[in-house]
Amino acid sequence: MAGPISYRSAGVDIAAADELLDGLGERLRSTYTPLVLAGLGGFGGAMRLPPGMSDPALVLSIDSVGTKIAVAARFGRLDSIGADLVNHCANDVLAMGARPLAFLDYIAHSDLPNSDLEAAIGGVADACRAHSVPLVGGETAQLPGIYRSGQLDLVGAMVGVAETGQLLSPDNVLAGDFLIGLPSNGIHTNGYSLVQRALEGLDLAEHNPEVGRPLADEMLAVHRSYVGELAPFLDRVHGLAHITGGGICANTARIIPPGLSARFGWGAWQVPPIFHLIQRRARIGFEELARVFNLGLGMVVIGGRDLADDLVRAIPGSTLVGQVVEASGPRAEILR
Amino acid sequence: MAGPISYRSAGVDIAAADELLDGLGERLRSTYTPLVLAGLGGFGGAMRLPPGMSDPALVLSIDSVGTKIAVAARFGRLDSIGADLVNHCANDVLAMGARPLAFLDYIAHSDLPNSDLEAAIGGVADACRAHSVPLVGGETAQLPGIYRSGQLDLVGAMVGVAETGQLLSPDNVLAGDFLIGLPSNGIHTNGYSLVQRALEGLDLAEHNPEVGRPLADEMLAVHRSYVGELAPFLDRVHGLAHITGGGICANTARIIPPGLSARFGWGAWQVPPIFHLIQRRARIGFEELARVFNLGLGMVVIGGRDLADDLVRAIPGSTLVGQVVEASGPRAEILR
Repeated sequence: MAGPISYRSAGVDIAAADELLDGLGERLRSTYTPLVLAGLGGFGGAMRLPPGMSDPALVLSIDSVGTKIAVAARFGRLDSIGADLVNHCANDVLAMGARPLAFLDYIAHSDLPNSDLEAAIGGVADACRAHSVPLVGGETAQLPGIYRSGQLDLVGAMVGVAETGQLLSPDNVLAGDFLIGLPSNGIHTNGYSLVQRALEGLDLAEHNPEVGRPLADEMLAVHRSYVGELAPFLDRVHGLAHITGGGICANTARIIPPGLSARFGWGAWQVPPIFHLIQRRARIGFEELARVFNLGLGMVVIGGRDLADDLVRAIPGSTLVGQVVEASGPRAEILR
Repeated sequence: MAGPISYRSAGVDIAAADELLDGLGERLRSTYTPLVLAGLGGFGGAMRLPPGMSDPALVLSIDSVGTKIAVAARFGRLDSIGADLVNHCANDVLAMGARPLAFLDYIAHSDLPNSDLEAAIGGVADACRAHSVPLVGGETAQLPGIYRSGQLDLVGAMVGVAETGQLLSPDNVLAGDFLIGLPSNGIHTNGYSLVQRALEGLDLAEHNPEVGRPLADEMLAVHRSYVGELAPFLDRVHGLAHITGGGICANTARIIPPGLSARFGWGAWQVPPIFHLIQRRARIGFEELARVFNLGLGMVVIGGRDLADDLVRAIPGSTLVGQVVEASGPRAEILR
């Protein structure tokens, strides 16, 4: 008996909510690590920090998966949306130089059956376990006056930890550093309002020859986590940019110090066909496309030549995509 | 220049979202404390732990204010809803024996103007500052397909910290301990679906003689934070129950060890008139009323005679409401 789980529910049908949490109990508890402090009152989750840290800093991130969740709900495929959320938050924490430590989630809906909620929360728990991150607390809320019928939102907060001196700062990035692009798994979790508009009228369930699978599968491909692959290299990394809303340039610009510029060479990596399809159907220019989507790069790593060589060798599909140069003007640019 | 604020936005109208965050920048930054680590990449918020801790534990809590936010939106009074959220989460963290350390918020909506969003987020920032807790990150999302027109949800995650050995555990609670009730400020943040149903048809804006003010004011009275008043006594407290959904008994039962029972004496405290009004109009029994609402007690403190005396003297309206006894059966009961 691991003690009360600080996972609570609010809303109209308390009996249904209790049943949901009973059904999920084991799956939630299975995320616990020895750092979790159980047997307390359960008004919150509690955990120790990893042993042996000298000057720990916390890194905190909160997010949802935006309207991707409406796509998942529409296709009755809420089981993978939890991984989208956890992986997105884990990458954000990683981009600060920290390791994910604990996760909280919040799910609110109008009138979904327990099976849908269980799929979503269970997916969160599974993705937490894959990161060895306990899901230490959560809340489910039934708020029919706020959410549209059949709809839900899923919010997650990740706590990460690092030695303060090892947090990544723009000061670490040097002229001459290389830009290594790690492949995305498709659209990840940004721009889904635009995606849905662009693909309206197409049969999403049928095989699409351009992207090589049904568009529904392409739209619901899970946001990739880079934590496992990048963790062994973290002490040699100068900078990490998680490519989400804002695209490659805006996100990379966040970690480039004044006087330097990250220059990406267009053509240095393969842009997945889904982005060409979206651009064509939405009739938007390259600028807008590049401001919304990752265009095939889910994470940009900045570091020296040795790191670049090792990463390209270790992570399939990763590739050199540019370099940091001394320059005034924009902190990041795609040279076409 | 405090460095990038890790407060981001997603949704349809990015220009409007950028304008919102520009307008809020100073108010967000004003919550920062010297523990916040600024100047990093902004993929998450970062902060140190308070200096001098030997075995720090984190306490984590996530919540929303439920359908109270729909009431606030209806009356155009979103400026106080942030304090509801922050205070609720702060009390949860306190009930574990920890002090609030950092806060994250998430706001999602369908079609609200920036002025409404600014009121809500600004209220979060102000309540954070009142707790000396930095609002280290957040997200705003415009998700029109998910939220009803005119509606929004506001989610917050609080990180608290305590020495591991000072976390409150049911093991601390002893037979003979006293129950001290701290007054609530009304309904706080639970049961608003029932409240709205019960009060339907009444003029909420007009003075209500039974509760002594307009019902809208009563419904939007801010969830009280007990952090400032209780912090000086924390090392003498045996247990704390934050009275939210589930009411006095279910929440107090969480911190009572096997073989003991918390016995509340009905009549020992004043039940605010709003609860009588709700019961009468909703035509529910006492059992249901007591399972949903705090009935006037926002926090129950458990401790020895000296603590009880000192609290009753120090906190206006606080009162002895019962005692912990040896008993099998329910861990908490109201004796009527």
